[in-house]
Amino acid sequence: MDFGINNFFDKKHKESKIGHFQDLEHIDGVSISTISCGLYNKKRDDLVLFYFRGGANYANVYTQSTLVSENIKWNRKIKDKKIYGILINTRNANALTGNDGYNSLKKISLNISKLLTAKQIEDEDKPREIKPNQILFACTGTIGEKFPVNAILNNTKNLVDKIKYNQNKLIWIKAALGIMTTDTKPKLSMAECKIGGSNVKIYGVAKGSGMIFPNMATTLGFIFTDANISSSILKQILNLNIKTTFNAITCDGDTSTNDMVSIFSTGSANNKEIKSFKDPKLKQFINSVHQVMLNLAKRVASDGEGATKFVTIKCLNSKTEKDAKNICFSIANSPLVKTAIFGEDPNWGRIAMAIGKSGATLKYEKLSILMGSKIILKDGKLDKNYNEAILSDYMKNENIEITIDLSIGSKNFTAYTMDLSKEYIDINSDYRS
Amino acid sequence: MDFGINNFFDKKHKESKIGHFQDLEHIDGVSISTISCGLYNKKRDDLVLFYFRGGANYANVYTQSTLVSENIKWNRKIKDKKIYGILINTRNANALTGNDGYNSLKKISLNISKLLTAKQIEDEDKPREIKPNQILFACTGTIGEKFPVNAILNNTKNLVDKIKYNQNKLIWIKAALGIMTTDTKPKLSMAECKIGGSNVKIYGVAKGSGMIFPNMATTLGFIFTDANISSSILKQILNLNIKTTFNAITCDGDTSTNDMVSIFSTGSANNKEIKSFKDPKLKQFINSVHQVMLNLAKRVASDGEGATKFVTIKCLNSKTEKDAKNICFSIANSPLVKTAIFGEDPNWGRIAMAIGKSGATLKYEKLSILMGSKIILKDGKLDKNYNEAILSDYMKNENIEITIDLSIGSKNFTAYTMDLSKEYIDINSDYRS
Repeated sequence: MDFGINNFFDKKHKESKIGHFQDLEHIDGVSISTISCGLYNKKRDDLVLFYFRGGANYANVYTQSTLVSENIKWNRKIKDKKIYGILINTRNANALTGNDGYNSLKKISLNISKLLTAKQIEDEDKPREIKPNQILFACTGTIGEKFPVNAILNNTKNLVDKIKYNQNKLIWIKAALGIMTTDTKPKLSMAECKIGGSNVKIYGVAKGSGMIFPNMATTLGFIFTDANISSSILKQILNLNIKTTFNAITCDGDTSTNDMVSIFSTGSANNKEIKSFKDPKLKQFINSVHQVMLNLAKRVASDGEGATKFVTIKCLNSKTEKDAKNICFSIANSPLVKTAIFGEDPNWGRIAMAIGKSGATLKYEKLSILMGSKIILKDGKLDKNYNEAILSDYMKNENIEITIDLSIGSKNFTAYTMDLSKEYIDINSDYRS
Repeated sequence: MDFGINNFFDKKHKESKIGHFQDLEHIDGVSISTISCGLYNKKRDDLVLFYFRGGANYANVYTQSTLVSENIKWNRKIKDKKIYGILINTRNANALTGNDGYNSLKKISLNISKLLTAKQIEDEDKPREIKPNQILFACTGTIGEKFPVNAILNNTKNLVDKIKYNQNKLIWIKAALGIMTTDTKPKLSMAECKIGGSNVKIYGVAKGSGMIFPNMATTLGFIFTDANISSSILKQILNLNIKTTFNAITCDGDTSTNDMVSIFSTGSANNKEIKSFKDPKLKQFINSVHQVMLNLAKRVASDGEGATKFVTIKCLNSKTEKDAKNICFSIANSPLVKTAIFGEDPNWGRIAMAIGKSGATLKYEKLSILMGSKIILKDGKLDKNYNEAILSDYMKNENIEITIDLSIGSKNFTAYTMDLSKEYIDINSDYRS
């Protein structure tokens, strides 16, 4: 993987199965710094700081794993209304590292908060004292290895010195690259909308390529906005949107100990305060946040480890949303379905197998299965126009869409995943990849 | 795969990661015939008949998939106390084939029952009329393809003509080979024990290599005994033993539409009738059936598609058996754990991830993780003797044992699986493998 930044302006790198990534520019109140602490053998940035000079409202969702990383334990204890920064390191997950891992975060937050307070005194008209418990952490990498606290502490001064108050597309790409692990492409997305009469921006970056199967949140995703929105409303927006975005993707059915998706609002757009989640003026904003989150989530799935194809799985007209979701993920996580897609084999019997093992309520005589717009099974019978040669041809596409219509209810779900290739095995059987 | 029978007497073919298979000899009342109907392009047997000339008591367990194959629908309707035969075909699962698939079985059972009745008249002192609903079916192969009813009907005469009343190790291996799909090794097992003063034999054959994750029964397994045991007691024995044998294995987490494990007793051992499942005279027999079933189930897991290693996963001292089972299967089905084992990487962080995502109740400060006899995590802390080099060395073994000790209860579970290799992808991305 070439981390040369300029490559990512190339058509080749901006392109992906789900389209170009967007260029992010400036968002007031967000500052970015990225550096290398040498956590990898190769030269690449591995530490990224998002700094909110005026503070930010925020909301987070975390993995539902019963074993969570030390940084998530840290974040869960934070009760401050505003936070001033989030520090993201790669290579080490700080999971199953115990007290040692937790104490490392104490040391780093103390150190960073002092450095940022000094920066406030230097740069701000009304400098604030920034406290250790106003810093969030996100960690991603190997589980169970000792957390590299000293390598990080040795580089925090440099990290804070390099903070840029004005962002451009270059620094956003650097940030998106700096949080990557086995990802092959940086993941960025943006939207703009209005709240009342005010224009607001929504920017997002994410990472994730393996150990991705949402059980609440998944992978790392960070959404930034200049909207003036309270933390409690941000939390409602995040909880609403997470279900159909980051919680609708899977790469390998494996749920990380470190999953975390956050949204931060700096308020610099100066829209009139919104008092309620149900305020109609918020509708456009909620949709735009959804659009950014879905775009990022799709980018994560399409860059799943070893992916050669991006797969969308729709389950329609189910009795319950839970059934629809179970069917989608039973198909999306089936290694037999995923290898058939890799092999470009329209082996729909494996899709039927996955529907059956999901345990969802269904009536066989009402079940329909489609690939793209091609009907395979219609009301439990092989469609009269079924033609394996045409289906085989369809499987050559980079984007595969599978639709299951249960025709017994009105609930739907859509999941996103990728195929299972030999490269997945290469990546993951490599000693400590 | 070479289906030359004599190869399977070689040391190379008899050996497996879990030891040699046993030679099965004769069991009174069981007859075997195997032929090729040309269902495969290559020359190999694809149709196997087990015929019980004096009838057999029997019990079956089936897949819990909500989409089941037509042969399982057929078998479920059979209410006769004795059955006379089970016909097993490969290459075609007869699943999602609808009425057409079901009617094929009607035709075949009618045809076979007539042929067997004629054979009774020719060979038996007291010939019986064998009825269509005294024939069971097991099917395995591709889902959703038209069932090859004519190819089978054209060969039933030959199949019945070739019935052998006396079995030897050769015919048992032929039967075990005849039911294979992507398996690389035939799976046979036997035990002998006493019921009261009578010696009884228990023979078993099984198949299965992919689409294997038990949800009640899994794959195909057939157990034969000359014991005199009623069908209702056989059912209790099967239900008891299935949990820790065929329902304790997984290859890829995918549950077939066709899973079926059956036990047949001919009664020719002439032991005194057993009235109750709880009769102490039955204890040895139940254990011996368990031994045969476990041996077969392990052979299925160790021959999982692309397997290079056989993996045993134990979860000890859990609050509930369900939790212990969930943890075992969360590890056993994790592609990240399985690829690490393939890569001989003692990446125990992925084991911890799988424990966490299982959702089982645990206390981190009581959690221990071992590989073989090597302690990694002890009461939530990295063990003082932890040595990655020694663990790396351990990973080179063909048999890997992972033990999780939760230390919060008294329930245990053991699951069996294999690693995930590039060959798995090769096998399953091959067009219609």
